[in-house]
Amino acid sequence: MEKHEVVRLLINFKTIEEFENFREFGLQELSMKEDLEANIIEDNSESPFYGVYFGNKLVGRMSLYKIDKKFDRYFEPPHDYYELWKLEVLPGYQGKGIGKSLVDFAKNLGLPVKTNARQRSDDFWKRMGFEPLTYQKERDRGESPFVWFPEGVSEQIES
Amino acid sequence: MEKHEVVRLLINFKTIEEFENFREFGLQELSMKEDLEANIIEDNSESPFYGVYFGNKLVGRMSLYKIDKKFDRYFEPPHDYYELWKLEVLPGYQGKGIGKSLVDFAKNLGLPVKTNARQRSDDFWKRMGFEPLTYQKERDRGESPFVWFPEGVSEQIES
Repeated sequence: MEKHEVVRLLINFKTIEEFENFREFGLQELSMKEDLEANIIEDNSESPFYGVYFGNKLVGRMSLYKIDKKFDRYFEPPHDYYELWKLEVLPGYQGKGIGKSLVDFAKNLGLPVKTNARQRSDDFWKRMGFEPLTYQKERDRGESPFVWFPEGVSEQIES
Repeated sequence: MEKHEVVRLLINFKTIEEFENFREFGLQELSMKEDLEANIIEDNSESPFYGVYFGNKLVGRMSLYKIDKKFDRYFEPPHDYYELWKLEVLPGYQGKGIGKSLVDFAKNLGLPVKTNARQRSDDFWKRMGFEPLTYQKERDRGESPFVWFPEGVSEQIES
């Protein structure tokens, strides 16, 4: 499958407008918009989102958030890692490897990656090299944590 | 709209089978099934899920999880509260007030309730009397936290 270029998304009104095409548009996106309107953040500052464009159109995106190892409850030994959420490819652009290009980008940052496999996306995450963790109700609260381990990192066992 | 009876769901093979009809079926449900198969939990023990039946068929459900006030990052003053997730009504049974009956059940437990308004469900949660919080990126990590306050409780301000 084709490899697609992944770029860091800049916070501006065009990006916010493109976000409205995605199913997950919530308080994270709204707060960006409000901060932009109130000049709390600068136009074209870096967002936590990465995306794939077809021409001028944003067709896939994900958010990446780096967690410090002192808060790590997933990996052994504890490790800085990325939380990946809101991975989404627009209908009409699915099946082209855009999701895989985004996930590969996250894996290539060199840290473990944790996501929540929602709505029966288990098979996708397994194809991406992710593994399900053992469900811990206090930690996971209904999530389905799937992780990707770089070499030398494994699952943290409940203490 | 009609008020529907809400019951605590018991963990048994029938419940697990009914869960497979819902879109959100992940590690939480799988771990219940494995614990049941391995006799780690007793047949017909109480689950964190509540549901509405039509005849013998489970048509709506939610999970409720009580959080101790020492972990509260949402309410002022800090308060024991419920996290509500996996609220879902099967297609064909929507628009009958089943979701509202489930949410009313949670509100009637007398504690604040916090949920994540996913996939543009904001309008639903507002109709249910919930309010969006101010997005805090370290706390919310992509979630859209909506809460219901009982009298005397308000939003916790970021310190």
